[in-house]
Amino acid sequence: MESDRSHRASRRRFLGGVGAAVALLGSGRRAGAATPDPAITELPDWTRYLGEGVASRPYGRPSEFEAHVVRRNVAWLTASPESSVNFTPLHDLDGTITPNGLCFERHHSGVAEVDPAKHRLMVHGLVERPRVFTVADLKRFPGRANRVYFMECAANSGMEWRGAQLNGCQFTHGMVHNVMYTGVPLKAVLEACGLGPNASWLLAEGADAAAMTRSVPLAKALDDCLLAWAMNGEALRPEQGYPLRLVVPGWEGNMWIKWLRRIEVGDRPWHHREETAKYTDLMADGRARRFTFIMDAKSVVTNPSPQAPLVHKGTNLLSGLAWSGRGRVKRVDVTLDGGRNWRHARLDGPVLPLSLTRFYFPFNWNGRELLIQSRVIDETGYVQPTKQALRQVRGTSSIYHNNGIQTWHVHAGGETENVEIS
Amino acid sequence: MESDRSHRASRRRFLGGVGAAVALLGSGRRAGAATPDPAITELPDWTRYLGEGVASRPYGRPSEFEAHVVRRNVAWLTASPESSVNFTPLHDLDGTITPNGLCFERHHSGVAEVDPAKHRLMVHGLVERPRVFTVADLKRFPGRANRVYFMECAANSGMEWRGAQLNGCQFTHGMVHNVMYTGVPLKAVLEACGLGPNASWLLAEGADAAAMTRSVPLAKALDDCLLAWAMNGEALRPEQGYPLRLVVPGWEGNMWIKWLRRIEVGDRPWHHREETAKYTDLMADGRARRFTFIMDAKSVVTNPSPQAPLVHKGTNLLSGLAWSGRGRVKRVDVTLDGGRNWRHARLDGPVLPLSLTRFYFPFNWNGRELLIQSRVIDETGYVQPTKQALRQVRGTSSIYHNNGIQTWHVHAGGETENVEIS
Repeated sequence: MESDRSHRASRRRFLGGVGAAVALLGSGRRAGAATPDPAITELPDWTRYLGEGVASRPYGRPSEFEAHVVRRNVAWLTASPESSVNFTPLHDLDGTITPNGLCFERHHSGVAEVDPAKHRLMVHGLVERPRVFTVADLKRFPGRANRVYFMECAANSGMEWRGAQLNGCQFTHGMVHNVMYTGVPLKAVLEACGLGPNASWLLAEGADAAAMTRSVPLAKALDDCLLAWAMNGEALRPEQGYPLRLVVPGWEGNMWIKWLRRIEVGDRPWHHREETAKYTDLMADGRARRFTFIMDAKSVVTNPSPQAPLVHKGTNLLSGLAWSGRGRVKRVDVTLDGGRNWRHARLDGPVLPLSLTRFYFPFNWNGRELLIQSRVIDETGYVQPTKQALRQVRGTSSIYHNNGIQTWHVHAGGETENVEIS
Repeated sequence: MESDRSHRASRRRFLGGVGAAVALLGSGRRAGAATPDPAITELPDWTRYLGEGVASRPYGRPSEFEAHVVRRNVAWLTASPESSVNFTPLHDLDGTITPNGLCFERHHSGVAEVDPAKHRLMVHGLVERPRVFTVADLKRFPGRANRVYFMECAANSGMEWRGAQLNGCQFTHGMVHNVMYTGVPLKAVLEACGLGPNASWLLAEGADAAAMTRSVPLAKALDDCLLAWAMNGEALRPEQGYPLRLVVPGWEGNMWIKWLRRIEVGDRPWHHREETAKYTDLMADGRARRFTFIMDAKSVVTNPSPQAPLVHKGTNLLSGLAWSGRGRVKRVDVTLDGGRNWRHARLDGPVLPLSLTRFYFPFNWNGRELLIQSRVIDETGYVQPTKQALRQVRGTSSIYHNNGIQTWHVHAGGETENVEIS
């Protein structure tokens, strides 16, 4: 590559930019510095030589300098990689859209690599006209919709029930992503099949080796569920259910059945494995809450955080994400002193219902220790609780639905860790 | 791989889904069909065997079944791939967000592969305090913003000035993409440097071997320009200016300087090569319009189109994109008969200013010939013109700013081609 570049080095005249940079040295950001900054006095290779042409990457990929920005798994967390999870690098991202290559994965029997030409969706049970649809059939429905939704695993932050655990928001909160889905409202497909008089629940089933199945109340299906084939403009990624997934806005990710092949309409829930043995909330007294579908309001400071510590004394910008399964984010408060003083953060970018919302808070850091938290209030007035408040109701045996306030302890040197304060 | 999968074939019990599918055969979509559909009677491999685990793809990629969804170049169009263009596959996408890997590329000396640690932005000229910024410096500004904007090359549809040319919306309209940018308002950075009393224009310069330079009116810079480091949540892609690009909402893409290294503030435009020899509009009388910055309202039907012809007789859903450099899309009209009858299309998804907007129009196809067009009206009342109307004013010597109405001729067999009608 380098030899290829060197023999076609640009012969263009050395233009004014760099010369001007040299002239500017006395007034640069390090005013009065004796040693010129080589970054502005030396012409870099990328200015001296032609770069790669347009034919080289039909499907693009990130810069090699961003190779650390990846989904990460925790090897000891699960018995096998086929029934496991990896996590979105929230601390390396900004805005509200999650790029498809970084959306966390959770699957129960590995990634089904489905041939879309052979894939079918069957709708049967308490319907007047049971039908089998191809993906192309679904794309001909007139009501196609594009909606940005967060998708959060019910187990996100689940390790935190018993106290501060993994050191990074990627691991404590990275089972959430936010993309624009394209699909057809499930309501339209159900109406095409004709709902029977006693229809009140659905069973959705995936085509993967786990045949993931969940019961979904019909009212939710008719409200805002989508049968989606695209995310952020392109086809679903295989690990997100290509070619078809159920979108259940604001509700726990396990219900968003991937590789969706079957919807059965019934008059009661099915009580399958993933809604009895799993995805229930074990309480302190040994009883389990079931069908706790909604993901309550939650927020996390993504920067600074253990993987992205403070390095600069002076002005900094705190950044984070907030969301609610009950609607829009109304307000986010931030504290730097463990909750003694709360300030309103600024929400920025589109504030869409059931969608990640970005917040910012500027602050000055003089090298002192900080205890950073964020707290979201959604449009229903619900206030994100403390972890202690959650434990008073649910104990510490739960895995799911931990939406408690997260604390980052910034040490005097900038190092940041996951802690709990009482 | 296959041998690896076969010895760990799932031993899970053969559950109800497929059995139910077999039972459903008599009521399937081809009711009364004698031959069962093997897609629902045979258990596919992806249900029988475990798939890949979560550790296999730290940064995800599309399904192998989507390998045809790529940026494409036109080899004969330019002399070398380093000063060339490839095109977004609009006919394969939906919604409004363009995934980063499919955003069209246009560069003049190849892709600069910039080391962000060595990259600097210098701001100088008619400012009180010339400064050099690192990307980290810019990330500490308090006013960080996230905005979804379309970015269109001024030459998009440029080959159409002399009549219908390339056969596909990817090639006629694929020099446009739409992502969420994260960055700092340029206004904040300029104010940090202190604008001089006569400041009225900027020169923005890139760090690539072309040292791309464009003059930008200060009023635009202070209005809504961003210095952006992220797109769709992650760092800019190298071909989109990593680590820093100028975002000039609604204005021609050539001004969105990539690999941005220098902003000089002055009191008049610079008349550099890319705003004199190029990126001007040659009129029929030999004079050239200059500084035609704004991308006027435009739309295109993406489906059906030459690369995505009609295949299904009966109900179909027409889909397309509309945008305006002057604000929001207000309305899109669609015709199937070459303009004799126009109908309102349905806008779907967020309708954001200076952003791609998706439209849909359901129609029934009985196999007849169609002449399909779309026409956008933006919030200023501007109506997308015909190509003939544009040529009456500008002749056929222009390359840039062709926002005329596009026509697709659907033949009786469904084959679709790029045509002009008078």
